[in-house]
Amino acid sequence: MAHHIFEPTHYHTTIGSHSPVLEVAAGDSVSTTTVDSRGGDASGALVTERGNPQTGPFLVKGAQPGDCLVVRLDQLHPNRRQGYTRGVIAPNVLEPGFVPQFDDLFDDDGEYIQWTVDTDAGTAHVAEPEGLLAGFTLPLEPMVGCFGVAPARGEAISTATSSMHGGNMDYRGFRQGVTVYFPVFVPGALFFLGDGHAVQGDGEIVGTGIEISFDVTFTLDLVKGKRISWPRAESDEYLMVAGNARPLDQAVQHATTEMVQWLQQDYALSARAAHVLLGQAVEYDLGNVFDPAYTMICKISKSVLARLA
Amino acid sequence: MAHHIFEPTHYHTTIGSHSPVLEVAAGDSVSTTTVDSRGGDASGALVTERGNPQTGPFLVKGAQPGDCLVVRLDQLHPNRRQGYTRGVIAPNVLEPGFVPQFDDLFDDDGEYIQWTVDTDAGTAHVAEPEGLLAGFTLPLEPMVGCFGVAPARGEAISTATSSMHGGNMDYRGFRQGVTVYFPVFVPGALFFLGDGHAVQGDGEIVGTGIEISFDVTFTLDLVKGKRISWPRAESDEYLMVAGNARPLDQAVQHATTEMVQWLQQDYALSARAAHVLLGQAVEYDLGNVFDPAYTMICKISKSVLARLA
Amino acid sequence: MAHHIFEPTHYHTTIGSHSPVLEVAAGDSVSTTTVDSRGGDASGALVTERGNPQTGPFLVKGAQPGDCLVVRLDQLHPNRRQGYTRGVIAPNVLEPGFVPQFDDLFDDDGEYIQWTVDTDAGTAHVAEPEGLLAGFTLPLEPMVGCFGVAPARGEAISTATSSMHGGNMDYRGFRQGVTVYFPVFVPGALFFLGDGHAVQGDGEIVGTGIEISFDVTFTLDLVKGKRISWPRAESDEYLMVAGNARPLDQAVQHATTEMVQWLQQDYALSARAAHVLLGQAVEYDLGNVFDPAYTMICKISKSVLARLA
Amino acid sequence: MAHHIFEPTHYHTTIGSHSPVLEVAAGDSVSTTTVDSRGGDASGALVTERGNPQTGPFLVKGAQPGDCLVVRLDQLHPNRRQGYTRGVIAPNVLEPGFVPQFDDLFDDDGEYIQWTVDTDAGTAHVAEPEGLLAGFTLPLEPMVGCFGVAPARGEAISTATSSMHGGNMDYRGFRQGVTVYFPVFVPGALFFLGDGHAVQGDGEIVGTGIEISFDVTFTLDLVKGKRISWPRAESDEYLMVAGNARPLDQAVQHATTEMVQWLQQDYALSARAAHVLLGQAVEYDLGNVFDPAYTMICKISKSVLARLA
Repeated sequence: MAHHIFEPTHYHTTIGSHSPVLEVAAGDSVSTTTVDSRGGDASGALVTERGNPQTGPFLVKGAQPGDCLVVRLDQLHPNRRQGYTRGVIAPNVLEPGFVPQFDDLFDDDGEYIQWTVDTDAGTAHVAEPEGLLAGFTLPLEPMVGCFGVAPARGEAISTATSSMHGGNMDYRGFRQGVTVYFPVFVPGALFFLGDGHAVQGDGEIVGTGIEISFDVTFTLDLVKGKRISWPRAESDEYLMVAGNARPLDQAVQHATTEMVQWLQQDYALSARAAHVLLGQAVEYDLGNVFDPAYTMICKISKSVLARLA
Repeated sequence: MAHHIFEPTHYHTTIGSHSPVLEVAAGDSVSTTTVDSRGGDASGALVTERGNPQTGPFLVKGAQPGDCLVVRLDQLHPNRRQGYTRGVIAPNVLEPGFVPQFDDLFDDDGEYIQWTVDTDAGTAHVAEPEGLLAGFTLPLEPMVGCFGVAPARGEAISTATSSMHGGNMDYRGFRQGVTVYFPVFVPGALFFLGDGHAVQGDGEIVGTGIEISFDVTFTLDLVKGKRISWPRAESDEYLMVAGNARPLDQAVQHATTEMVQWLQQDYALSARAAHVLLGQAVEYDLGNVFDPAYTMICKISKSVLARLA
Repeated sequence: MAHHIFEPTHYHTTIGSHSPVLEVAAGDSVSTTTVDSRGGDASGALVTERGNPQTGPFLVKGAQPGDCLVVRLDQLHPNRRQGYTRGVIAPNVLEPGFVPQFDDLFDDDGEYIQWTVDTDAGTAHVAEPEGLLAGFTLPLEPMVGCFGVAPARGEAISTATSSMHGGNMDYRGFRQGVTVYFPVFVPGALFFLGDGHAVQGDGEIVGTGIEISFDVTFTLDLVKGKRISWPRAESDEYLMVAGNARPLDQAVQHATTEMVQWLQQDYALSARAAHVLLGQAVEYDLGNVFDPAYTMICKISKSVLARLA
Repeated sequence: MAHHIFEPTHYHTTIGSHSPVLEVAAGDSVSTTTVDSRGGDASGALVTERGNPQTGPFLVKGAQPGDCLVVRLDQLHPNRRQGYTRGVIAPNVLEPGFVPQFDDLFDDDGEYIQWTVDTDAGTAHVAEPEGLLAGFTLPLEPMVGCFGVAPARGEAISTATSSMHGGNMDYRGFRQGVTVYFPVFVPGALFFLGDGHAVQGDGEIVGTGIEISFDVTFTLDLVKGKRISWPRAESDEYLMVAGNARPLDQAVQHATTEMVQWLQQDYALSARAAHVLLGQAVEYDLGNVFDPAYTMICKISKSVLARLA
């Protein structure tokens, strides 16, 4: 159970079978850093091209297609005070033809709202434009926007989007303490992560969270021979499945079907019990409704499962 | 502020400009009953045709198109012990081509799961098929599945679906204590309600909550001259907007646009402030992903709004 | 086989169980008129409220739920020279956020493009704004935008939209000479029609065809005991099915499933033969991508069917 | 204007920045072969892995990002007699929950319908299962299912899907004689093609056309400095644009917006004229409704454009 310290020297804007930057054993943890969505590091310097550049990939020895990669998000820590968001809700999230009328000089296409991220206070507030939401703060909820594993067939998938391999799911529930499960498609699994958000609303409807660079620590492990189809996750309170697709209806289908199978396989529920239970106890979160693939989360409370005989 | 006791003698399976069963003044409350989705009353007797039969309509004196009808759900109380749900997740919520394999003799098309609803204990559990989810209970969260006002143009819209007038939104957040706002389309508003659920999961993915008859009390009021486009609601914790459409993407568009306008009009936010705030603080709930129109809820925490200067 | 001449005195903007204006026998034909989408008659006078006002309903004696209503469109004839269209592609048909930039003073929300419809020449051309598409003509292809039968359950459905009962399908293939089949939901069927277009592009992407009043003649007949689910149609060249829903994907599902069943029931194809044949020979038309429900047409060439043994 | 004969030795199941197999000058033509979707060559031998393996990439000297690649499909010729299709309409094209009932022993998941492709007669007919569609033939309409150029950012996109770079569009209109335009994203453009179909219905609703290997000849050319966003094409009769996305609604948005821009840029239409003209004269074809991204074609007849002053 080694603990590796890794300092990245280059980044990737696709998730694919790129050369690993570090080989680790199942059970090892890694402490490293991620740059922000534009390639800015802890000092704010732009050190790589924009577009959710990823740290990694990390190769897990012994991982084979058909295994399940276990990623525990041990620590997600913004490592600077400057974050940024876009300042307008994306047009695909508003009524077709509804054009917002702003009374300021902010350039929606070229500018960002600047936020101060105060990790001591545990809050974020707008720094610029001056006067916007003056005196208002949001509690920090650091999360990882884009992470996942190399897909099959030699694909190299843009970090703008997501699919069965994970990717840019932009779900605010991927927080510190959560364990995420990915299907393994290639030997070594090849794990990437980046695109940290200090805060993000449901749906990432402005196209960003509060984008910022992170210090991260995660632990990588394997479940040999366990096939899953979509990213699964587990917090203290919930089992969660991410379905990634457009439209949201299809994301719901992916996530719900995977959850039914999870409950039948690992929680000894009959198909009937799984359907009846989910029918009255399932919950959904809207991950993102901005990226090329949208993300819906199907989840069930562990407290509900605990009450099963 | 009169309090009316109303005992229904007939029901409607469309929401339209039907003859009012009672005329009330703005500010009055009404105590009445609703039958279950199949037309069953407190005794279990089928007293009307199936399909979310509605109690009402209630005419509010003075209501005119362009006003806003205010409905406070004062009391939602299951009035019998027998509830029922469907026993299989709807095919449109699962992967196309995924056909669940059940190992029981339950008839998905013709039978219902029977639940015991214990309002003293505040729980529900499966009564039949025997042995299914044995020993398991869910806490009651009574909610109204279908309610709303007569639409414009003389339309009479099936209680299977929903739109700007409300209707079969099947959102678990429409609970006791919540205040709901509907646009008024016709003189008198003509308010209907029915389809009570003792419990319901997000999305109503089996096509039912725990369907049951209710004793209900609600208060009807008006905001004169206040135009809204989609049902809005308010609980102690949240402002909420319901968008009703297919696919879910479009429901998101309706709900989000209405929320932006609400914040600008009633919370003195500039367009920019509304966009930036929602971007990082908005939440969404999945009302239903089963009915002809799906329902997405866009909501914002009152605790967030309270922190605005 | 009587031939009725009917002169309408009022119109409906919902399709529902309204009082019949004329009772006819199966096999009878009717010659009547329809007003344009804004309620304008042959003289251009606005004689009723806007919104695809319908002529009818026509009651067919002996029609019962579970029968199939047969409507042959014998004659569709624009009866004046002035037509109109909207002048901008609807925002839901363009990229979210794409806002067209026009260099004229035309008011997209309040004005219409005026067309001259020359039934002698068989063409239409822009009359106003002057100079727009100067010298350009389109061949007339008169079609009926909105027609159908009263739905079940007492619904009265807006003539803005469509569903299993027909309605505002806005498919350019519903032309003179075509026979359309509707499911019968109520005794007498109750047939409505209106919303004639002198010309329309696929998809009705500006939200209108060239809107105009019509002289129409149609023949109504019945197939007793023949249940269908969605509007079917037949021209000299094609069998066609209309699926009406959002998104287009769902309209495709409705239309394709109905076509599979049609081929199996009436063309003696095995399920396998129907699937294999459609796989390589099916065609689709885009009816409308503007109305609340979109319309996709699934069709198969009669020349293909004629080659089956 | 050289003419190259190229014999492939390996294939790709992603479209990405792979090493070019041949460098050609703008204006050159290439004659080569493509394998079928499972990797079968003219002899039927499986020479590479399945999944629409592509011949190429062909590098066009001088091509730079921001140019437009011109591909003329000079010859598309099935080079063997054995083709195959799947035998069941894909579940996403049928009503959710509609499960076809076949009365044969054909294995939908593992088997293919076998077709005889007779290029002399110009027809295809089912060879196996024996007796299926006996005596029935379809005229050959050879088309290329998957072709396109390397995308930006180092992506390598699966040949199962499509996007702005082209890819698996499965549109029956990409036939011999058609000229297709792709945006260039990387130096040299890097053109791939494969997945020939002897015949295909609209929508590729069984998930295949009649899959077969091809002898192909194409000519590659450049328009320097011409930026386009989506694949465009031109036949003798039509201008066409392919929009690739899910749901179909979004594919319509991509294709229509690109067509508006094409008409304004290259046909000297004002924005108003383009909107008004398309409104009444646009046509749409359904490319595919099976692949991860669906394809809608927006097209306008050249005979319409020819009538513009």
